Formats: sequence, C-alpha cells, structure tokens
Amino acid sequence: MAEKLWGGRFREEMDESFRSFNSSFSFDRRLLRHDIEGSIAHCRALKEAGILSEEEHERIIEALSEIRREIERGDLELSDSYEDIHSFIEAALIDKVGALGEKLHTARSRNDQVALDLRLFLKEEIQETIERIKRLQKRIIELAKENMGLILPGYTHLQRAQPVLLSHHLHAYYEMLKRDRERFLYTLKVCNVLPLGSAALAGTPFPINRDLVARELRMDAISSNSMDAVSDRDFALDFLYSCAVLMMHLSRFSEELILWSTQEFGFVELPDSLSTGSSIMPQKKNPDIVELIRAKTGRVYGNLISLLTTMKALPLTYNKDMQEDKECVFDSLDTVKGCLEMMTILISKIRFKEDRLKEVSAEGYLLATDLADYLVYKGVTFRSAHEITGRIVLYAMDKGKELDELTLEEFLKFSRKIEDDIYDWLDIQKSIERKRLPGGTSMETVKRNLLEAEKEISS
Amino acid sequence: MAEKLWGGRFREEMDESFRSFNSSFSFDRRLLRHDIEGSIAHCRALKEAGILSEEEHERIIEALSEIRREIERGDLELSDSYEDIHSFIEAALIDKVGALGEKLHTARSRNDQVALDLRLFLKEEIQETIERIKRLQKRIIELAKENMGLILPGYTHLQRAQPVLLSHHLHAYYEMLKRDRERFLYTLKVCNVLPLGSAALAGTPFPINRDLVARELRMDAISSNSMDAVSDRDFALDFLYSCAVLMMHLSRFSEELILWSTQEFGFVELPDSLSTGSSIMPQKKNPDIVELIRAKTGRVYGNLISLLTTMKALPLTYNKDMQEDKECVFDSLDTVKGCLEMMTILISKIRFKEDRLKEVSAEGYLLATDLADYLVYKGVTFRSAHEITGRIVLYAMDKGKELDELTLEEFLKFSRKIEDDIYDWLDIQKSIERKRLPGGTSMETVKRNLLEAEKEISS
Amino acid sequence: MAEKLWGGRFREEMDESFRSFNSSFSFDRRLLRHDIEGSIAHCRALKEAGILSEEEHERIIEALSEIRREIERGDLELSDSYEDIHSFIEAALIDKVGALGEKLHTARSRNDQVALDLRLFLKEEIQETIERIKRLQKRIIELAKENMGLILPGYTHLQRAQPVLLSHHLHAYYEMLKRDRERFLYTLKVCNVLPLGSAALAGTPFPINRDLVARELRMDAISSNSMDAVSDRDFALDFLYSCAVLMMHLSRFSEELILWSTQEFGFVELPDSLSTGSSIMPQKKNPDIVELIRAKTGRVYGNLISLLTTMKALPLTYNKDMQEDKECVFDSLDTVKGCLEMMTILISKIRFKEDRLKEVSAEGYLLATDLADYLVYKGVTFRSAHEITGRIVLYAMDKGKELDELTLEEFLKFSRKIEDDIYDWLDIQKSIERKRLPGGTSMETVKRNLLEAEKEISS
Amino acid sequence: MAEKLWGGRFREEMDESFRSFNSSFSFDRRLLRHDIEGSIAHCRALKEAGILSEEEHERIIEALSEIRREIERGDLELSDSYEDIHSFIEAALIDKVGALGEKLHTARSRNDQVALDLRLFLKEEIQETIERIKRLQKRIIELAKENMGLILPGYTHLQRAQPVLLSHHLHAYYEMLKRDRERFLYTLKVCNVLPLGSAALAGTPFPINRDLVARELRMDAISSNSMDAVSDRDFALDFLYSCAVLMMHLSRFSEELILWSTQEFGFVELPDSLSTGSSIMPQKKNPDIVELIRAKTGRVYGNLISLLTTMKALPLTYNKDMQEDKECVFDSLDTVKGCLEMMTILISKIRFKEDRLKEVSAEGYLLATDLADYLVYKGVTFRSAHEITGRIVLYAMDKGKELDELTLEEFLKFSRKIEDDIYDWLDIQKSIERKRLPGGTSMETVKRNLLEAEKEISS
Repeated sequence: MAEKLWGGRFREEMDESFRSFNSSFSFDRRLLRHDIEGSIAHCRALKEAGILSEEEHERIIEALSEIRREIERGDLELSDSYEDIHSFIEAALIDKVGALGEKLHTARSRNDQVALDLRLFLKEEIQETIERIKRLQKRIIELAKENMGLILPGYTHLQRAQPVLLSHHLHAYYEMLKRDRERFLYTLKVCNVLPLGSAALAGTPFPINRDLVARELRMDAISSNSMDAVSDRDFALDFLYSCAVLMMHLSRFSEELILWSTQEFGFVELPDSLSTGSSIMPQKKNPDIVELIRAKTGRVYGNLISLLTTMKALPLTYNKDMQEDKECVFDSLDTVKGCLEMMTILISKIRFKEDRLKEVSAEGYLLATDLADYLVYKGVTFRSAHEITGRIVLYAMDKGKELDELTLEEFLKFSRKIEDDIYDWLDIQKSIERKRLPGGTSMETVKRNLLEAEKEISS
Repeated sequence: MAEKLWGGRFREEMDESFRSFNSSFSFDRRLLRHDIEGSIAHCRALKEAGILSEEEHERIIEALSEIRREIERGDLELSDSYEDIHSFIEAALIDKVGALGEKLHTARSRNDQVALDLRLFLKEEIQETIERIKRLQKRIIELAKENMGLILPGYTHLQRAQPVLLSHHLHAYYEMLKRDRERFLYTLKVCNVLPLGSAALAGTPFPINRDLVARELRMDAISSNSMDAVSDRDFALDFLYSCAVLMMHLSRFSEELILWSTQEFGFVELPDSLSTGSSIMPQKKNPDIVELIRAKTGRVYGNLISLLTTMKALPLTYNKDMQEDKECVFDSLDTVKGCLEMMTILISKIRFKEDRLKEVSAEGYLLATDLADYLVYKGVTFRSAHEITGRIVLYAMDKGKELDELTLEEFLKFSRKIEDDIYDWLDIQKSIERKRLPGGTSMETVKRNLLEAEKEISS
Repeated sequence: MAEKLWGGRFREEMDESFRSFNSSFSFDRRLLRHDIEGSIAHCRALKEAGILSEEEHERIIEALSEIRREIERGDLELSDSYEDIHSFIEAALIDKVGALGEKLHTARSRNDQVALDLRLFLKEEIQETIERIKRLQKRIIELAKENMGLILPGYTHLQRAQPVLLSHHLHAYYEMLKRDRERFLYTLKVCNVLPLGSAALAGTPFPINRDLVARELRMDAISSNSMDAVSDRDFALDFLYSCAVLMMHLSRFSEELILWSTQEFGFVELPDSLSTGSSIMPQKKNPDIVELIRAKTGRVYGNLISLLTTMKALPLTYNKDMQEDKECVFDSLDTVKGCLEMMTILISKIRFKEDRLKEVSAEGYLLATDLADYLVYKGVTFRSAHEITGRIVLYAMDKGKELDELTLEEFLKFSRKIEDDIYDWLDIQKSIERKRLPGGTSMETVKRNLLEAEKEISS
Repeated sequence: MAEKLWGGRFREEMDESFRSFNSSFSFDRRLLRHDIEGSIAHCRALKEAGILSEEEHERIIEALSEIRREIERGDLELSDSYEDIHSFIEAALIDKVGALGEKLHTARSRNDQVALDLRLFLKEEIQETIERIKRLQKRIIELAKENMGLILPGYTHLQRAQPVLLSHHLHAYYEMLKRDRERFLYTLKVCNVLPLGSAALAGTPFPINRDLVARELRMDAISSNSMDAVSDRDFALDFLYSCAVLMMHLSRFSEELILWSTQEFGFVELPDSLSTGSSIMPQKKNPDIVELIRAKTGRVYGNLISLLTTMKALPLTYNKDMQEDKECVFDSLDTVKGCLEMMTILISKIRFKEDRLKEVSAEGYLLATDLADYLVYKGVTFRSAHEITGRIVLYAMDKGKELDELTLEEFLKFSRKIEDDIYDWLDIQKSIERKRLPGGTSMETVKRNLLEAEKEISS
C-alpha cells in the first residue's frame, strides 16, 4: 500500500527519522472508527453531488465497513509506516477497490477530516465521561443515604467548625460533579459542529450538501467559516479544561479520604482490597488509590497548559502544530475515566466509623456558633454575641470543659441574657436541625436534596 | 474604628507583619460596591425575618449607601489597617449607626459573603467583557465590509495555500470571538447563583428568605449545599479559562498582524499613532500593540494555572487559600479588557495595501488545487489529479512560470484531459467564486455571513 | 520634560489609550536605582572611549546621583506620562544638564539597557532571598535543637510508619532549603553577565570597554553575542523556577503545620499572634499564615508559566513581548520574600506538644519494621520476616494490643526465632538509636547533621 | 512468580481494576537496567555488612545479570500483572535463586530504591541529552562557518533593524544551547546523590556502607537526611525545567526557520526530504519538522507543570503521588531528544538563498542607525542625531529612495555636519565591520566566537 497522500511536487525521498518523527499514526489510530464513520458520511455526500455513482458509493462504503471489521478482528496490520490514520485507511481502501478509492478524498482535505475525527471521538467520549460522572454521583447519593443521620465536624481551615451531617458533606461533592456534568455538556455542544466541507481552508468547489453530512453524523450544526473550521481547537481545549476542573474536585475528595483514613482522624476504613501495603513496613495500609487520583490532577492540568501553549500565536489556518492536540486529549480522557471509576469503586466499599465520628463531634466547641446565635435570639447584637462567646470558649478551655458542661452560673458570668434554655442550643442534634434553610445541614433539607439528586441522575 | 471581626478567644495581639501579610484589603477593596450591594440585600432579608425592625433596616441601608457615596467621593480613607473589605465596611457602619451596625453580620459569615461579592463583581464584569468582545466583532465586520473583494493568500503551515477573500479571513476571527462570547455567557450563568445563607459552612438557624435575596440581587438561583457554596471557586476558574481562550484567539490575530506588517509580507500599514519607534534605530516603526497582546497571553494562562494549583486538594470547606482567588481574577480581567480595547482601536485604523495583496495573490501557485479539482471534474480520480498537478507545479517552477502562464501544449504533456477551459479555472476571481458552499470563501457566502454577523451583534 | 526617546520618523501623535497600554513605567520604576547605576557605569565607559570629556562625565554622574537622591526623598514626581524608566531618567537628566544629557544614550539601546537593569535588580534581590532562606534555615536548626530528643511518627502515605526524631524531620526541610539556596546561587551566576554594549542587537561602533563596565558593575562576564544578549530572558526564567521550587517546599512545610495544628493531630500549638479567628465561629483559631503560603505556591507557578509562554517561539531579537518579563518577576520575588519571612516568624513561636507526641508515638505499630528487622538479624530472609510481621500485626490489632504488649508465647506462635531480646527491639528509643547510618534518625546522626548545618549557614 | 512485596497484614484480595490502576509496571519497566544496577551495588553492601555471604552475594549478582540479559534478549516476559519493576525483578530473582532472593530487600525499601533508579536513569540520559545538544551546537557552528560573510537583516519587533552576519545570528543559538548545557550539567550534579540507605524514611539499622555504594554507582555524594531523600523530587523537576527552557530555545529557532522558509521571507530552502506535502494542495511544501518542534514546547511545559502540581503541599515523606514523576520525565526526555535530533538533521540540509539575502539587506533603511552614529562622530548629541536621522528616513521614504541614494545636497538639508564620508558609513560591509566590540557582528568578532565555540564543544 502507498503510504502518503502527496508527493508529486517532491524530488527527494523523505528522510527516515523524519518520517517517524512526523507520523501521528502511533496515536491517531485511536480515531480509526471515527475516521471511517466520517468517510462513510462523506461518501454519501459525494454520491448526492453526483461525484460518485450509486454503485461506486456502495463499493466504497462496503470496503470501509470491511476495513473496520478487519481491524476490530485484528486481521489488518497497523504498520507504523503510515503518516497518519487517514493515509492508512485510504491505502487500505485502494487495496480493496482499486483506483475508485482514489476518488474518496475529493472535496476533502486532511485538515477538515482530522478536525471532524477528533470531534466525533470527543462526542462519544464526553458522553461516556458524563455517564461515569453520573455513576459516581449515584454512588455518592447511596452512600449519603446509607449514612443518614451520622454527624461529623464540618471544617474550615481544617479546624473543626460546626457539626454537619455526613450526608450533607457528601452531597457537596454531588454538587461539584453536577457542575462538571454541565460543563461537559457544554463542551459536547461545542464539539457538535461539522467542519467537513471546509477542505484545506477555503472551502471546496464541489456541491457537497454539508447539512446532510451533519445530519448523517448526528451533529447539531455546520461550521460557518472554512478558515476557522480547520484552525479551531477550542473544542479540545474546552474538553481539557473540563477534565482539569473535574480532577480538581476529585483531588479534594481524595484529600479528605486520605485525611479521614489517617490514624489521627480515623473517620473511615478503606477496604483492604483497595489499599496497598509497604515493602518494608508490615503494619502499613496505604490509601494509594486516592493518592494517585490526587496526583493525577497534575498531569491533567499539564495537558491543558500543553495545548494552550501550543495554540498560542499560531497564524491561520492549519499548522502542523495542531497535530499535538491528540495525545494530551487522550491522556486526560483516560486519566479522568480511570479516576472516576476508581473513586466509584472505592466509595462503594468504604465504611465510616460511627463511634469515632460521635466522639469527635462531641468535642472541640463545635457549638460555639450556636451559643452566639442563641445570644442574638436573646437580643444581643451579633458582634457582641460573638465576642461574649469567644470569652466563654476561652474560659471553658481553661477549665477543660466542653460548652455543655458549663453550669448556668458560669454562663451568667458572661451574659445575664443566658437562661436555662441554653442547653437546648448546645444539643448537637438540635443544632443540625436548626439549619433548615435551603442548602443547610438539617436532616429535612438534606433528604430533600438527595431526593432531588436522585431525580437528576435518573433522567 | 475596630479593625477585625473576631478576637474574643485570643490572648495575644496580632503580629504586625503577619497582619499585613494576611490582609486582603489592598486588593479586595475593589469589591466595595458589591459588598455593599450584598449587605443591603442581606439587610432586607434580616428585616423580613424579624431580626431587624423596619427602622433599623432603614438606618443601616441609608448608612451603607452613604458609605458608598463617601468612598466614591474620596471622603472616606481606605486605611490599610483593615483585614478585609468586610471588616472595613462593618467598622464604617458602626461608626455611623453605633451598636446597631453590629447586627448586620447576623446569619452571615465572611465565607458566604466573599463568595457573593466575587460573584456579583464577575457578573458585572463579564457583561462588560462581552460588550467589549461585541465591539471588537463589530469592528471586524466593518473592516471586512470595507475591504470586500480584496483577495489575499490563505495560508497553511505559513505557506501560501489558496486564495481567499480578506473578508473571509477576518470573519474567521469573528467566529472565534463568537465562541468566546458564548463561553463567557456560560460563565455568567455559573456565577449567577447565590451563596448567601450558607453562613460559615453549615447554614444558619435564622429564617432568612434566600430566594428573596437572590431576586433582589438579580441572581438566577440559590446554592443547594452550604458546604459546597463556601468552598466552590469553579465560577472564578471558568472565568479565568474563558479569558485564557480569548487571549489565545487574540494572540493569533496579533501574530498575523505582526507578520502582515513586516517588510516581507507588507500586507498592512499600522497607524503611526498606534506604533512605536526605537531609541536607537531611527527608521523603525514597531507593532508594539500587538506584540503586547500576544505577550499578555502568558500572564492570563499563568493566572489560570495559579488558581487551579491553589484549589488542588483543598479539603472542605473554606480554607484561607481561597483568598488567593481575587488578584488573578482582577489581573486577567484588566488584561483582557485592555487587550480587547486596544485591538478594537487598532483595527479601526489599519489600512490594507491593495497593490501588495494583488501582487502576492498572483504568485505562488495558489491555484494548484483548482487545477487538481478541474481534473476531477474531467473524470480523473482525486489522487491522480493531485499527483498530476504536483508534477505540473514542479515543471512550472523549473520554467519560472505561474500556472496560468503555461500553454495548453505544456498542459497536455501531463494530462490529455486538459482543455481550453482550464484557463477559466486558473482565474483567481473565479476560484474564489467556486467556493460557494456554506462556510466557503465566495463573495456570496461571505456577504451572507457578514449579514448574519451584523444581526447577531446588534441583538 | 520630553517623554519619549524616538519620533523623528512619525507623522502622527500617539494615541492616548495606547500610550498608557504601552507604558511600562508603572512597574519598571522599580528598576530606578539599577538603571541609574548602569548609566553611571556606561557614562564612565563613554569617557574612557573619548565620547564624553572628563568634565561632561562628571556633570552627568553628579546629575544622575542627584536624581536618585531626589527620588528617594520624594522630590521628583514619577508622572505616569513616561514610556518607561529609561525615558524618565533621560528626561530628568536633560532637565538638569541640558543638551549634554542627550549624549548618554550613545552606544546604547534600551534593549541592552533594560536587560542590564533587570540583571542588576535580580543580582541584588537573589542575594537578599538567599539571606532570607538562610534565616529560615537557621531558625529551623534552632527549633530542631530546642526539641532534641522529641519523637514523633514519621509518615508515608500520611499513615504512621516509623518513629523519627522531630529534629530529624525538621532537618529534612533544612535540606530542601539548602538545595534552594544552591539553585538561587546558580541563578545568580546566570544573572551576572553584562549585556551592555550589545546596543539594539548588532553591537555598537563606539569603542566601549565592556570589560571595564562589567568590573564597575561587579559582574562576572560579558555576553558573547549581541543578538542573544538582547533577546535572552533565561536568567529571569531561572529565577522564576527557583522561586517555584522553593514555594513547593514551603507548601509542604505549610501542609504539615496545618495538619499538625488540627485537633486530630494536635502536635503543635500555633501562637495566637500569628493565627486568626472567625467572623462567625468564636472558638476558631485558624492557621491562615500557612494556608496563605500554601496557596501562594499557585501564583508563583503561574508566574513561571506566564513567562515561559511569553517567550515561546519569539523570533530574534528583542520583541516588545519581553516587556512582560518584569511583573511576574516582581510578584514572585515579593511573594517568596514575604513567605520566607512569615515562615521564619511562625516557627520562632510554635510550640510542640510533648505529651501528645509521646502518646501517638506509642501507638500504631510504629515498630513493626523493627520487628521484621529483628527477624532478619535472627536469620529469617527479609521477605519472610516481612510476611511474619504482617501476620503478627494483624493478630495484635485483633487483640487490641500494641506490639510490645504481646507475650513471648504469642510471638512464638508466629516464629520460633523470636526470643526475649525482642522487647529491646520494640523499645522506641532504641529503635531511633539503631538508625545510626549517615542520614538516619539516630540522635547521634541528627546532632552531627545539625552541627554541619550550623557551619554551613554561618559561612 | 509472586507479584507483590507485601500482604501479610491484609485480609482481602486486591481488587482487579485497582491493581491495574495502581501498577506502574507499564512505564517503570523502563528503569529495568538501573534497578538491576542499583540492586547489584546494594548486594555488595549487604555482603560487606555481613548480611550476605560471599557466595550468596555472587549467586544474586549472577542471577540479576542473567535477568538483565534475558530481558534484553526478550526471553523474559514482562507481564502486566506486576505492581512495579521492583516486584518484577525480585520475583524473577527468587525464581532463579529461591529463598535467597528474599534477602536482597534487607536494609532497603522501594522508597529509596525508586528514588535511586530514577536518579541513575536521569544521570545516563542527561549525559546523552548533553551530547545531543553538543551535536546540534557543532552543526550550528559548521553552518555558520559555511555561510561566513553572508549578511541578513537583524530584526527587532520582527521589523528590519540593522544588518548582521548570518553567522552571528546562528551563533546566538549556539549561546542559548550553551546555557542549556550548563543547566543540564547543574541538574546532573543534583541527580548525582545517593538516596539508598534511607530505607522507608528513617534509615536502617543494618550497617550498610553508603559511601561504598555511592562509589560503586559513581555518584558524588550520599543524601544527608533519610526523610528528605525519599520524598525529594527536585532532581526530576530540575530536569523537566531544563527541558522546558531548551524547548523554548528550539521553538524560537523553529519559528525563525518557519518564517525564513515562507515565500515572503524566502531566506532559506528546506530540503524536500525533510518537508511534507498537502493531501489536497499539490504545490505545497510544508516545514512540518519545525512546526512540530515548536508545538512540542507545549507538552514539555505541561510536563513541568504536571509534576510541580503533583508535588505541591505533599506532607512528608513518601506519598504514592510521587509515582506520577516518571511518565512526565520520560515524555519530556523523549521529546527533547527527538527534537534535538530533528533540528540537527534539518540544519545539516538547509540552504540559504544568497541572492534573496543580498536583496533584502540592501533595502529597508537598515543603516539608519549608522547614519545616526555618524552624526554623533561629527559631534551631534545622540538624541539629536536620532531625531535628524528619523527625519531623513521619512524624507527618503517619501522620495522612494534608500539612504545611500540620497545626494549630499539632500543630506545637507537636514544637517550641516554631514560630509562626503557619509557614504562610507552607508556601506553595509563597513557597517558590519564597525561592530568590532566583543559580542558585536563584525567578521573578526564572529570568527573569534566560532573558534571559541569549536574549542568548547570539542572538550
């Protein structure tokens, strides 16, 4: 098979090491199915335009489908000697149908073809990514439901702040992932535009029906400007960025799971089947899975910077630089899919340590804010209430007591407004229940949120 | 005025150098108007909840409005001794209304307050950014209309490829900016969610009507989870990313203007009033304006990486790290607004050099693709047509002729299919006109696109 | 005063908004002292070359010195109307000495001048940065000495692994900072090359003695290629990178201090004077200082990416893009200096909680590795020893015992090699002392390291 | 063979998808030779320490050497079921020597082992990278010598500025690469420190002679702190950064070659054998090779950001996150080596177009600075000389003349100082020769620089 799509104008053979440096076939072969899918749609359009006869059209489509099947079965060798996936498929086609195969590239350039392939690929993969996000969300909601009622300290600055329901805490991650899903949906829309018909950069003189091709490929729209269409990689950047934010969210979740599984926090037990040991310290059980997810945030950020850098200051239209758009996309995609799967598996198997959570929620002056709020209800201005409470906490710390262990007499030394009902405000369950506002941590609010979430992910 | 909002629990004074390291007032003062706007809405909600009386509510709102006016007039000193904008305004309020001012922070924390401020700020600034993008788009369309009919070489790999209309080329930038506008609109939607009512992290026991606050502040929705609401900075990241892609587009436009204004290309004359000279070489006229825009892409990328890095692996909920969200946002915003303005001014004054464009469009075998397409129309398969044309080009180069300078006899040596109508295909105007497909470079298509564009930006 | 250094070739006035967009004077004024220092050295060279008379030379130097003094005293207004620091100083000079001042720019361009200024600036500031690193190292060593003998768990994967001396742990940060110092020293050497004499890009016909200028400015070498000299910003990148790695190290130290000051770890008490409170939760004491240091890692990474992006693919020689080299350098410098100072102050005041450290070091099977090592000493292969110990740990966990609470009978169930001397190996102090290899955590090794460190930083 | 090095403490089997997510064997197998090399040195140390007998030591070393040979011959299957390279080799060893193989991990952990492997790997590869840089430098110097005497315009702001020797221009890249070499040499020194003996984090109780191991592995020093040694990745970052700056330099060279090979500049002809064609436009000859190098700058920047992000805020000591240090290092290494090779090949075959260079050097007022310098020699102050020359250029442009086409009468209208010797100053050869200062573009200076360069790279 011939291995490149050009050459009439050249006097010398291609340098061998350059050929291999230049070739994208080692990675763009991943676009094989999409390249064939696009070619089939293009072939239909050529028939409609009278460039291919009905019969030629059928022979080509049949051959392309066969190539796809052969590759899936491993019957066709993907030799590294090809310049790219497009050259490979055209050569395989010509092998099957002879000179007829040479007609397929009419009204098309690799510039619009490769843009199409990557868009089709991302279209499919973004949908898969969204499904995986949903699965993780579903598992989060299940975990939240299973642990309904469990209280743990909410933190700010990694200092214990106020008690919250574990289910409320978990639902926060549901919300982050919800924004991720929306961002990927936005990116999907951006991908869903047909560049084919732009040819090299200027459009084509052949009367291709671009709308028909778009419909055939289930794309929402056709590109409006041929020069933009072949030099635009916004859709790939949008994808890389969506991956970066998703990984940031997963890195936060991972960080918390790492903390929670330390001996010091001790909130959670990771399953043996998802932990690792040490080659030297026999007692160790390490949360590698979440450490790796946290770490891989770096590479997904790196991929985003990589393509942003590559695209900077490129003059119109297509430049070879854009060939570098694929590996970073593939790497972020694989990373994100792997991390989503791992996180889903992991949280299907973690177990919260109820006793420890109870213990820590009873300590640490978690209800100081409730005390301040109590004072406000009694007519103290918030700023004074805050000040008074601060002094009470200091006093209690000196005495080695928690707030609810102080006597009314002790309270009265700080404010005459405090009465016996203060102990009601220092009850952790009631504290939780008072946060009934939408978005608050009360049982009622959280249950409503979980219900809402279940509806969203089942749709 | 008192300078911080806490302290009851502390035994020692704050270290002076730490105070200044910790303070965000030097930059978050930029949120002043939005902080007051948020406080006014919060004040209304406190009144509705019965926490403030009608009269208290009015006194506070009046005082806040007065503070805003005083600052605008420069009557209130913004001393650096404050911890942040919130402390400053609360202190100013207490100065005016006494202890009553201490009530305003009821049912609110700086955690939800600062998230609100930045969202309100971005809401306003994104709208302004979109307006500036529109102005640039408008100017691009005008330029395209003024130069309608002018042909220049379209490039791939910075090698002359095929002739295109300059207006088509310019319209490609219109399209990029259109995607930018849509991305900013998406970000605007993301910003438009009310975090207030989340308090420190758990919600608040006070019966605030969050929907009412959202309506008052013209926001689309309220946050669903208090812990997420105070620890989420996705909206700021989305903004920084939108800025990064916009700058990437502007860097490409800048690169082309730099190239076009070289002596070698010579396509464009930059106005004296927007160029600079050299301190040593008297003949120089430098395109600093576009070099700076190209360069500033770096800082906008840097700001994105900055916040992504900062947010990585932060445990819930609020951490002081998030204070670092503002300067990068301000810097990218100012950069983007400045660059949009500069680019708009610049392209209002550039002049294309018609003679030079004509000259270069006539050279360089720009119509080789048309020759190949001609052969396809005559029944040659595309791959052969491409090969034959390659050989003709090589021949012509050897002879020092352009394609339309070859005789029919010379053509016939390469293919018997070539007839006299070939010269029609080697006419540059006709080449342009043949690209009549949607998105192509024909006069008709481009005019339709410009009309469409005008409609879009006037809406 | 005239405000720019060129113009003879221009027909139009500069656009006002462009003037302000283009001006670097709002930030490069920070190079004022260095610009004057460089000009004085250049002035000497002009005298040596016979271009200035002895008397002219003296008048100029005197005037430049006076300008410096006036600015330091605030007597000279730094009006924003100047294009840059060079224009400002030349104008001020001409104000003082008339037409004579117009001679100073002979044999010089702003291209080599600004490269010199930034190199001189960095030379000074890198030395200052190194001093600050040393101060922090010194304080770390003092802290290590003060707490000599204190044991805490060493962690891998944030799981307790083996006991180590706190002083050993602190010394690890000393080592990181030592590498930082060496990296900054390397960067200092890179900065220490004189670009002056390169003029705009090609060199100058005036017989300037460049070596003399270098000596005068205490620089190690002169640049070898004028085109490289004016387009090189490696020295600024090296600086930004050195800052990035330093911040990475500080972020790790910060992370540990944040963890150690949680209620859960409870290893350390931060001083009130360096902590902050909450505007809503009165009991909170937050480690803002180290959260901010951790966060600022992001902006310093961002600055590095910013300049790397800006420099990518710039053709030779000077391009206006390079004006963007300064703000990122200033920002990273200020950040790094601030963070070093804060960290130094903070660790001067933290207090380790001895009781808590003792408590946690006694738990958690920290000596499992010692048990395995014991078995090896008794002739078991390491892999088996590891396996056996793993099973003993599991057994002990089930029994709720620590390793040293197991009886010899219990041990014997797992290996017949275990004898009574096992309890010696399960003594934490002795475990520490057994790590006597260079780099190990024994008291003796650590003391030797601290001594060595003291010598290094006092040199 | 057993596939992991731990497990005694675990009750459940490892989850299969986690096993594959967790495994680094698919990429760390690249460290195979270095892992074996390190193990052999460790084995010697175990013998010296009396832990292995002379005979055991020999059997292990022989087996390890055999494993290496088998793998090189492809006789040993690298099954994906291993956790990492260390597990694989230990298992292979036990397969060969039985239980004896279980002794090798004594006094060692994978934490210090993997740090060693990567350092040994980089040591070797940095030397290879430096060799490739030298080859490119050598080729640059040859090219500079071959083209000695050729003049082209030097540019600032991509506007023609002053004439320079092409050899001088090329030598600027030599200088950049020289700094790169020095930066890699610095990194080499940083890598050259032995971590082995740090064990998991605390050191080891076994009396290993670390200095002996270091000597055996030809490393300069041993690490001073075991906790730092296992958690330090500065050496990998230094490598990634050195690659980033090198790529930045190559991207600049690439950009210039792209520009020079446009029809508009036309300075250079790329060889057919290193160019590509278009699948649609038969006349195209594209500089893909340098476009790809320019583009790959992005991925190398991305890799740097990736590891910087990963390392941010990791608590001591080893965390699984650090497993992510390898792929980015491998990718940057392969990219850099490939790009260096391609650039070397390319510039061995490019041809400068002498006629075109002569043509462009005669135009564009390149000698305006010389005219200004002339006036200074005649006693005009530089600032006035600059102003006068600016006006002369404007006049000449209006007349459509170059400077040397103006008559003396015309000159005299602008300055009475101008005499007949002006035409000497407007001679391009003489202009070049006047830049005799070190670093300037005169033939003499450049020749001296090339001679110096040849000495440097042959050393």
